Amino acid sequence: MTTETSTIDALDFPAPPYAVADEVADLLFREARTVGAFTDEPVSDEELAAVYDLLKWGPTAMNTTPMRLLVVRSDDAKARLAAHAAEGNRDRILAAPLTLVVAADPGFHRHMPVLAPHLTALADALEDQDEQRSTIARTNTLIQTGYLITALRATGLDAGPMGGVDTAGIDAEFFAESGWQSQLVVLVGHRDGVGTAYPRAPRLTWADVSTTA
Amino acid sequence: MTTETSTIDALDFPAPPYAVADEVADLLFREARTVGAFTDEPVSDEELAAVYDLLKWGPTAMNTTPMRLLVVRSDDAKARLAAHAAEGNRDRILAAPLTLVVAADPGFHRHMPVLAPHLTALADALEDQDEQRSTIARTNTLIQTGYLITALRATGLDAGPMGGVDTAGIDAEFFAESGWQSQLVVLVGHRDGVGTAYPRAPRLTWADVSTTA
Repeated sequence: MTTETSTIDALDFPAPPYAVADEVADLLFREARTVGAFTDEPVSDEELAAVYDLLKWGPTAMNTTPMRLLVVRSDDAKARLAAHAAEGNRDRILAAPLTLVVAADPGFHRHMPVLAPHLTALADALEDQDEQRSTIARTNTLIQTGYLITALRATGLDAGPMGGVDTAGIDAEFFAESGWQSQLVVLVGHRDGVGTAYPRAPRLTWADVSTTA
Repeated sequence: MTTETSTIDALDFPAPPYAVADEVADLLFREARTVGAFTDEPVSDEELAAVYDLLKWGPTAMNTTPMRLLVVRSDDAKARLAAHAAEGNRDRILAAPLTLVVAADPGFHRHMPVLAPHLTALADALEDQDEQRSTIARTNTLIQTGYLITALRATGLDAGPMGGVDTAGIDAEFFAESGWQSQLVVLVGHRDGVGTAYPRAPRLTWADVSTTA
């Protein structure tokens, strides 16, 4: 147990047996915030590749790793994306140095001979199963989204994940050829001062969210 | 980090500008593995609560945080769960010190007055929208699953996420009253030697998974 005497701290951080330093737990989780406004500091392709080189190792079903990312950085691309965002989110996309569109690739099975050679027969069987492939792609892309947000933070970047986009509109605008299916967007950059992160919202307790069989 | 000079390492880890030490990047991502066989060392409720006290801070849409966890630790509970797993996964559930059933709570909206007080009207509007609530719960539970797996590793635990379970059967067995909807299961424990982690499978490159608008 910690020697903290504050009630909130005692509830929030009981006897942590963590394998990472407090600073890491803070950076990735406890002090991290969803950010909506960023400095002008650009985000390079090298930084994004480094983020990917962490998140790619996160486990997915059958190693399908179906998450795909559209990098939106130019003024033109920002405008095209913002047109498909809810009104409150448009300005954020236009202002952020970079936005990632997180998409699922229902054509993931074409990579299975490389990703999971022992499952090539299963991949072949999925060829005509559009709906099933779409479900597998979406499920595992969302799990990978959790890795993405953690990996962005581990790379010193701030993230602002947002729903509130017209995914069908985005797919028609950007993915007509690839067939990728957009799920959400993530603003990426460096936060513009503490005040621009959203205020910390409460969380449910372990007792609220768990039960033992 | 290894000192390997192979081409693959050079491609995989280019000039990383990470905000965490190499050991942390390795622990959480690069050297982490899906584990299927564990030592007998138990996993305590305190450890699970500590894991939760990291993952709970990961962002979700409207702070819905709909992930719920069933803790399966007793022999009886393991047997009840294993009965709903694909044959290859049954023995793993019976042998692991603990398995978490990751479930989505479509009743998440009842917590919105606490989690997002400014969205209480929206939560009320969702009351009669079972399908929409189920989709929101599933989407955000899967994103939280990415946080869960990372947080388990940050707490010094190994994780073995598995699909291949009969989710409808699990829901009938364990969640008839709560209405939780199971998504996948995660074996939890300490890996039983290096050989029991699955071999490292290849990953797609950043160029494979990304495009710029």
